[in-house]
Order: sequence, then C-alpha cells, then structure tokens
Amino acid sequence: MTKQLKQSTNIGIVGLGLIGGSLGLELQSLGHEVRGLVHRHKTAERAKSRGLAQVISTDPQILSECDLVIIALPLESLLKPTAELISALPEAAVVTDVGSVKEPVLKVWQKLHPRFVASHPMAGTAESGVESGKIGLFRNRPWVVTPDITTDESALQLVHQLAITIGCKWVSTQAERHDQAVALISHLPVLISAALIKTLGDERDPNVRNLAIDLASSGFTDTTRVGGGNPQLGTSMAASNTSSVLKALTSYRWSLEKIEESIITGHWGKLETELERTQALRKSFFKKNTKN
Amino acid sequence: MTKQLKQSTNIGIVGLGLIGGSLGLELQSLGHEVRGLVHRHKTAERAKSRGLAQVISTDPQILSECDLVIIALPLESLLKPTAELISALPEAAVVTDVGSVKEPVLKVWQKLHPRFVASHPMAGTAESGVESGKIGLFRNRPWVVTPDITTDESALQLVHQLAITIGCKWVSTQAERHDQAVALISHLPVLISAALIKTLGDERDPNVRNLAIDLASSGFTDTTRVGGGNPQLGTSMAASNTSSVLKALTSYRWSLEKIEESIITGHWGKLETELERTQALRKSFFKKNTKN
Repeated sequence: MTKQLKQSTNIGIVGLGLIGGSLGLELQSLGHEVRGLVHRHKTAERAKSRGLAQVISTDPQILSECDLVIIALPLESLLKPTAELISALPEAAVVTDVGSVKEPVLKVWQKLHPRFVASHPMAGTAESGVESGKIGLFRNRPWVVTPDITTDESALQLVHQLAITIGCKWVSTQAERHDQAVALISHLPVLISAALIKTLGDERDPNVRNLAIDLASSGFTDTTRVGGGNPQLGTSMAASNTSSVLKALTSYRWSLEKIEESIITGHWGKLETELERTQALRKSFFKKNTKN
Repeated sequence: MTKQLKQSTNIGIVGLGLIGGSLGLELQSLGHEVRGLVHRHKTAERAKSRGLAQVISTDPQILSECDLVIIALPLESLLKPTAELISALPEAAVVTDVGSVKEPVLKVWQKLHPRFVASHPMAGTAESGVESGKIGLFRNRPWVVTPDITTDESALQLVHQLAITIGCKWVSTQAERHDQAVALISHLPVLISAALIKTLGDERDPNVRNLAIDLASSGFTDTTRVGGGNPQLGTSMAASNTSSVLKALTSYRWSLEKIEESIITGHWGKLETELERTQALRKSFFKKNTKN
C-alpha cells in the first residue's frame, strides 16, 4: 500500500505558473495547506484571485515553516536561484523541482540543499503563466525522479508520497538517461517540427506557399504543432540539455538522409520497407498505452 | 449560382477504395446512379454488400453508358492503366482522377483521353481498401483541379459540378504548383515524421529507448503520426513526385541546419528568435481556418 502525503505536511510552492499553479489547486482540493511564493506583486494578486494557494506572498519567509518545498520556476531561474530564495529554504525541509532537464539541475541543487530531490512531473506544456494552472493536469502522467547516491532516502519517500497523492505514475531513473530520453521524445520533435514550419515560411514562390497554406490539412497541423509552441521553453530545453539534443539531432539527420538516399537513387522497395518499419515501430511504441 | 450535377448523369467509378467507395456512397445518398468497376471478384462481393454502388462488376464494359468516369485507383495503377480500361472509356465521357500528384498523371492521361480533367480531392489518407469508404469524407475539403490549355472547358465544368455536389471547395491551379505545394504540406511531413520514429527505433541504448517510449506523450504522438501511416502511399508519393519532394527535403535540411547551428554555437537569442518566428508563422498559416 502506497502512503499518501500526510495532511499535516506544510507545503510551499515557488512559482505559480502552469505546473506550480496546478499543483497548488490539486493539493488544496485534496485538503492540503499550500503556501505560494511568487516574484511580483501583480502575479501575487492574480494568483490570490485564482486561489492557487491559501497563503500567497512575494516574501520568501513564508517558506520558513514548510516541510516540503516544490520549486516550480522556469528552467533558467531554477538553474540560477537567488541567494534570497536559497537562504529562505528550511534546512530540514525536503526540496524538489519540476524542471524538464535533470543533470544540470542536480549539479546545481545538490550543493545547495541536503534534502534536494530532482523531479520532472511530465504534464502539459502548451500554456504558461499564472492563468494556466488547472486541476487534473497530473492525472496518470509520469512523475520522474532522478536520485543518485547522495539523495536522502526519506526525502525521496516524501516526494513519492506527493506524486502518488496527485495521481502521477512514479518513474525513477538516472539523470543522464532521463535527459537523453526527453531529448528524443520532447526536445528533438520541437526542433524538427519548427524546421518544417520554417521550410514552408521560407518557400520563395508565393503562389506555391499560399496554395500550400490553403491545402494544409491534419497531417501538416499535427506535424507542426510542437514547433509552434512556447519559444522560451524550446530554447531553454536546448540550452540546458545541449549535448543530448545535439546527439539526437545527429542521429535524426542520419535517419532522414537514409530516407533521402532511397529517393535520390530510386530504391522504392527500400523506401517502402523503411516506411513499413516506421509504421510497425510507431505501433509498438504506443502498444502499452492508448495515446495514438 | 453554382450548378449541381444533373441526376441524369450516368457516373462510373473505377476502384472502390477509400476515395472511390466514399464517392459512391456520397453520390448515391444524393440520388445519383453509380456504377463501380473493381479488379477482383472478392472485392466486388464486399463492395456489393457495403452498397458502394448500384451496379458493381469486374467487367469494364459497365462503363460504356457513362457520362462521367472517376478513376479512383492507386497512383501506380493510375499511371499505368490497362489497355482494357482505356478502351472501355467512352470517348464522349468526361474522365477524371483522384491522384495525389498531378504532373505525371496529366502527362499520361492527356494522351489517352480527349476529355480528361486532372483532379485531386484532398480527403483522409489514414485508411484504405474496400471497407474504408464513408459518407461525409469530402465535406469542406479541397477538390483541386489542374487544367492546362488542352483541357476541355465543358469537361472541366462537369467536374466542377461533381465537386460542388459532394460539398468540396473548388481549387484550380497549375499541376506543377500543386505538386510543389503537396510536397511541402503532405509528402515532406511524412518523411520527416518517419525519420523521427526511425531515430527512436535506432537508439542503441535500450534503457534510454525504453524510458523514452514510456515517457512519450502528446507531442511525440502528434509529430510521429503521419510517419506511421500507409507505407505504399508514402512510397508512391515520393516515387511520382520525386523532384518536388527532393527540393522540399533540401530546403528542409537547410532549415534544420540553421536551427542546429544556433545550438552548436550557443546563440540562444538567435534560437529563441527563430522559435518565435515559427510560432507566429504557424498561427498565420492557420488563421484562415480553424484547423490547429
């Protein structure tokens, strides 16, 4: 039997954007007390009117009584935390994050707090900001943790309780492995999808470009979706997961060149075999679940 | 006022797969008489039990009384029609096709029939075969025609009536321009999406590959959808639209390399500007309609 988070756990959330705000709403709906720390007064006002936490402030001192602090800041701020935030974190509290890249986070935060646990709850990325938090965002989504030998075992258990309480699937792996996997399924798709949008945008014949836009249907819509997403998020993923992203891009270019080679040389049987393989592979990827 | 197809028009459909079968069902539902020609006896039986046409046969002679013949064969068969089919087409009938590439089709068919009109009704591609035809497939979808100076004006008008009758949007353009546009929005997405599937399938570290598959969510699902589609269709598109597809691939590789360059050189501001541009471009592509 998995233990749920105790009602008496005093929870602090730093940043009330999509992930932080959704965590605040979800935890309150389950009867928990939540304190939210935000950067600006204006954000605090909006967060209060949306009820994202019971106590909302721009003063880091509201974290002083917390047993568990979730840092839900954008990746850049997470990687360069202010001295004020660091000194406000109680030494006895468990501290975790929600960053989409784990090796650089672990490197920075391991030195900053003895009870830090590196987390990546993998939920929605299309929206952002104080207006975007919502109930149910984490239902059946993976909560990935990347502990290493220095990770405090009881801190890890508390984060496990948090993940289970809000309905996440628990996935524990190595930080490097996590970063390589998300480069393949999340960061690479953004870049190859953006390049497709760019290709149509850069088409020099306006007649061809306009006709293409008129005729574009679901296939083009699907393939360009992530490339038209949040530019800051895409950039911070590439900037903080550079080596895995470059490795994935190199592998991708090789794959595309093999396909192009079949076309240049007119090896249609080879191309068809390749497309039969990708059809079968995709089915196998989504066999375990129903997301296709 | 746009004229609908006369009820007295005697319509023949060659091939009763997704497009041919759907046309048969749609036209019958609008009160038209439809004759369907198929290749195999087994297919004829299935087509009859599904009611895809009033008269269904494997004998090309059923086309002898037709005023309008729609050739809804796969691209390869369309480009290499049998002598039996050609001789069964009444000289006075209007003949059109549904092929997804237009220059090669026009080249072959212009010589074969004096009243040929090159068409591409752009509707669903995920399913195929005699079981896949359905009502409503063409509603608000583009019916593209690519007439040239040799095209019979009255034949073009009859195809226009057909397109309007089944609820399509009429788009008239040049064959070359059509082929370049569909290379960008349909054929290129299939190839770049297939290459993404291949990249994950070829990942050599099984721990990374399996974790990636476990963590894959909607972004990966969307971006890989068309690359996991019908292998025969993808191959025939590349084989019959080779020069436009290779041109699109060259332009695409350049676009991706510009993005990769920003990452290799760490020009994060440049990458963010590029992703802001693709975000804005995608919005502009889909401004006119609601398909995003």
